[in-house]
Amino acid sequence: MEDWREIEAVWDGEKAFEGRSQAGLKVTLGAPEGFSPMEMLLISLAGCTGLDVSSILVKMRQPLKEMKMRVRGLRREEHPRIYTQIEVEYLFVGAGLDPKAIEQAIALSEERYCSVSGMLREAAAIHSSYSIQTESAATVL
Amino acid sequence: MEDWREIEAVWDGEKAFEGRSQAGLKVTLGAPEGFSPMEMLLISLAGCTGLDVSSILVKMRQPLKEMKMRVRGLRREEHPRIYTQIEVEYLFVGAGLDPKAIEQAIALSEERYCSVSGMLREAAAIHSSYSIQTESAATVL
Repeated sequence: MEDWREIEAVWDGEKAFEGRSQAGLKVTLGAPEGFSPMEMLLISLAGCTGLDVSSILVKMRQPLKEMKMRVRGLRREEHPRIYTQIEVEYLFVGAGLDPKAIEQAIALSEERYCSVSGMLREAAAIHSSYSIQTESAATVL
Repeated sequence: MEDWREIEAVWDGEKAFEGRSQAGLKVTLGAPEGFSPMEMLLISLAGCTGLDVSSILVKMRQPLKEMKMRVRGLRREEHPRIYTQIEVEYLFVGAGLDPKAIEQAIALSEERYCSVSGMLREAAAIHSSYSIQTESAATVL
């Protein structure tokens, strides 16, 4: 069924807005101490596909111990300064993780489930890559 | 000049991710107490166009005292559950605000400056509307 999502945003009188979810969560966008809206777009994408991929891997009983993502977007020079390319890097940590399961989970999210990805790919080319570590010692992407 | 934006996201081991900006700001997405990624997409849009519109009105020396937005998105039924329609409502509070200046500011943001809007409109029809109040007594949209 179709359904509506709704948020509110309130100006602080200077250079920031406070975003408010239906559940009452708050987050600041703008200067001097908030997220930039275009950063927040990448965070929305990371959350969307990350939540998909981690939950699919858990359902597949993959031994996932840690997971981290880095998402980069290339803003074009002309207005509006949209991202023309987006790179999603996944890092998975766990002994015995199956690369085939990981590739399947990423594909399911990016091609079928992730709504944020489904919207952004209309404007930008999205590329993804992943790496697997068996130990959590160096979980740096 | 083109430039890259980058964020990170770290899995909490259950059903949430922590998004991290380059400046070190943090925000939680997922269950049980985070923003949903599709909500965050609407907050990104509100922040983007809200920051544009408020700063343009200030530059135009419009007597803007308060500003609030409500953004709604209609998710389609099939996967990926993208928004097919997005409605942006602006509420401006101030005595002597000029509707022509407001319409010009909204148009400049939506057509030229707002990068989030520039991306999302490739996937969804975005409609906007506004109202003006002279008093802040009832700043409810």
